[in-house]
Amino acid sequence: MKIAIDAMGGDNAPKAHVHAAQKAIQAFPDLEITLIGNEQEIRKHLQEEKQITILHTTEKIEDTDQPTKAVRRKKDASMVLAVKEVKEGRADATISAGNTGALMTAGLLYIGRINGIDRPALSPMLPTLNGKGFLLLDVGANMDAKPEHLLQYAIIGNTYMEMVRNVRKPRVGLLNVGTEAGKGNELTKAAYPLLEQANINFVGNVEARDLLSGVADVVVCDGFAGNLVLKTIEGTAGTLFSLLKKELTSSFVNKLAAGVLKSSFKGVKDQMSYSEYGGAGLYGLKAPVIKAHGSSDETALFHAIRQAREMAEQQVVTIIKNEIAKIDTVKEEKE
Amino acid sequence: MKIAIDAMGGDNAPKAHVHAAQKAIQAFPDLEITLIGNEQEIRKHLQEEKQITILHTTEKIEDTDQPTKAVRRKKDASMVLAVKEVKEGRADATISAGNTGALMTAGLLYIGRINGIDRPALSPMLPTLNGKGFLLLDVGANMDAKPEHLLQYAIIGNTYMEMVRNVRKPRVGLLNVGTEAGKGNELTKAAYPLLEQANINFVGNVEARDLLSGVADVVVCDGFAGNLVLKTIEGTAGTLFSLLKKELTSSFVNKLAAGVLKSSFKGVKDQMSYSEYGGAGLYGLKAPVIKAHGSSDETALFHAIRQAREMAEQQVVTIIKNEIAKIDTVKEEKE
Repeated sequence: MKIAIDAMGGDNAPKAHVHAAQKAIQAFPDLEITLIGNEQEIRKHLQEEKQITILHTTEKIEDTDQPTKAVRRKKDASMVLAVKEVKEGRADATISAGNTGALMTAGLLYIGRINGIDRPALSPMLPTLNGKGFLLLDVGANMDAKPEHLLQYAIIGNTYMEMVRNVRKPRVGLLNVGTEAGKGNELTKAAYPLLEQANINFVGNVEARDLLSGVADVVVCDGFAGNLVLKTIEGTAGTLFSLLKKELTSSFVNKLAAGVLKSSFKGVKDQMSYSEYGGAGLYGLKAPVIKAHGSSDETALFHAIRQAREMAEQQVVTIIKNEIAKIDTVKEEKE
Repeated sequence: MKIAIDAMGGDNAPKAHVHAAQKAIQAFPDLEITLIGNEQEIRKHLQEEKQITILHTTEKIEDTDQPTKAVRRKKDASMVLAVKEVKEGRADATISAGNTGALMTAGLLYIGRINGIDRPALSPMLPTLNGKGFLLLDVGANMDAKPEHLLQYAIIGNTYMEMVRNVRKPRVGLLNVGTEAGKGNELTKAAYPLLEQANINFVGNVEARDLLSGVADVVVCDGFAGNLVLKTIEGTAGTLFSLLKKELTSSFVNKLAAGVLKSSFKGVKDQMSYSEYGGAGLYGLKAPVIKAHGSSDETALFHAIRQAREMAEQQVVTIIKNEIAKIDTVKEEKE
């Protein structure tokens, strides 16, 4: 089992990446890791080279780069080389905390889509009150999705939650403005019957207000809607924490009381954080490609490695391929 | 100036409605109010009848009623009679905290749309960090909006914020997945140039994560997107408060410290509440129709009355009509 890591992407590169790789090697004795990036900078943080290979390059895709151009022009960028490791069979999965659009472009160009998947989905795990989390897809890879795409997302998400997160019969929900069947826009109205007929545990429409309460294990929507929900959660949580901070430091007595509660506040923040869940998958590609958050620290990257390893080990891509082939067969038989 | 209030809609009817009406009469000596509903129940809470008329009816639309059917069949429902007061010229504006869909149906059926407005928008004010709030439209009246609808919402929102909330040159933003022009789905890409050319202070795309920071005074989107954002804010805030409550009552010491901070927590909750902003407007109808939240208390209803009064006084509907007519003239001249 070998994982290729773009060691130069994200705010904490390459230090957090190197530390996460070393932690992962200790946790998983079957694992080998290729760190791709500036060898000299990587070596600064590397203490133990067992099971770790460095692939040196100085080229790098920036967050501000236009994705398609960057992938075409910067052929030796750490991210592009990481994806090529998978393409050319030298790695089973890859991880980057860099430019999301560029990673999607490189994934599509070099690794390619699973047969029958029209568009891969960008799929993060989001936190829930019960600590189990849910998979939201898509959050921005495909802005104007068609009903069939939402069905494909449902099958992808179902497989991922079952095989990687060990959820039995994951509850798959359709993000909508009301729970009754027949609610919604043209897209969700057309997607509903497709999901109903699919070989999944479809729990119907789910409302945005119930997502963090854990109303479903997998929630499907078009990339525009998913992106809005993801960013509204981030924005609302951020606003509330800053309001709290302001109120709690507004007097000496408040500061004292808030000091007592410090670990409680941290507990709440941790429960709302998604670093434990790994990165967002670019699911639908022919190999596991994980997009770690740009601000990922060592812990988040360690969990992204664990996630990529689990996906490869459980052959998630092969299972998705087979499940998608089944729908296409049913469709052909009907036609 | 006369306002018709559906005294039977919402969780706290009719008590909160009667108290809010009495408070409003004291605050605005020019105001007359008609309370529509069960006279006997209304009288239980009524202390002073000056400037207040009761229109008795026992019929009522329930929250669970199917909107179109309910409005057609329950012709004497308090909500329907309230809307008819406006239609027949006996009131200048109306307020209900009842079934949203039914209020929209009754508004369209009896009051009708402003010429040139294809679909009215459901438009609440949402809280921002600076306490000024922003108007979000649409949050669910029109699921599959067209680019022209977003332009109409922008003009409606601009007029409302200028005339009722006294914001000079309101910043109008387009809800989107990124701030750069050219981002988004087919709808937002097509709406962007229309907004750019409109006679408003268009500030471009705004992201969901920046809404509560007050990035714009008016934010336009289709009803599906707006509903997701509204409910995600509610769900995230609710989840955070319940996590906090759990952590802060987890030990005796925590409870003591949390007790000291009680008013601070209440302060944060109040800043996130929108009762001060009144109700959601059904803007685009030929008269002010305000949908107060189902759980509105006396304060929220008082602010809804103030809002309806201000809209009528400032002739917001007439101004919207004139602004919309200007676009249509420009369009005709171009053709």
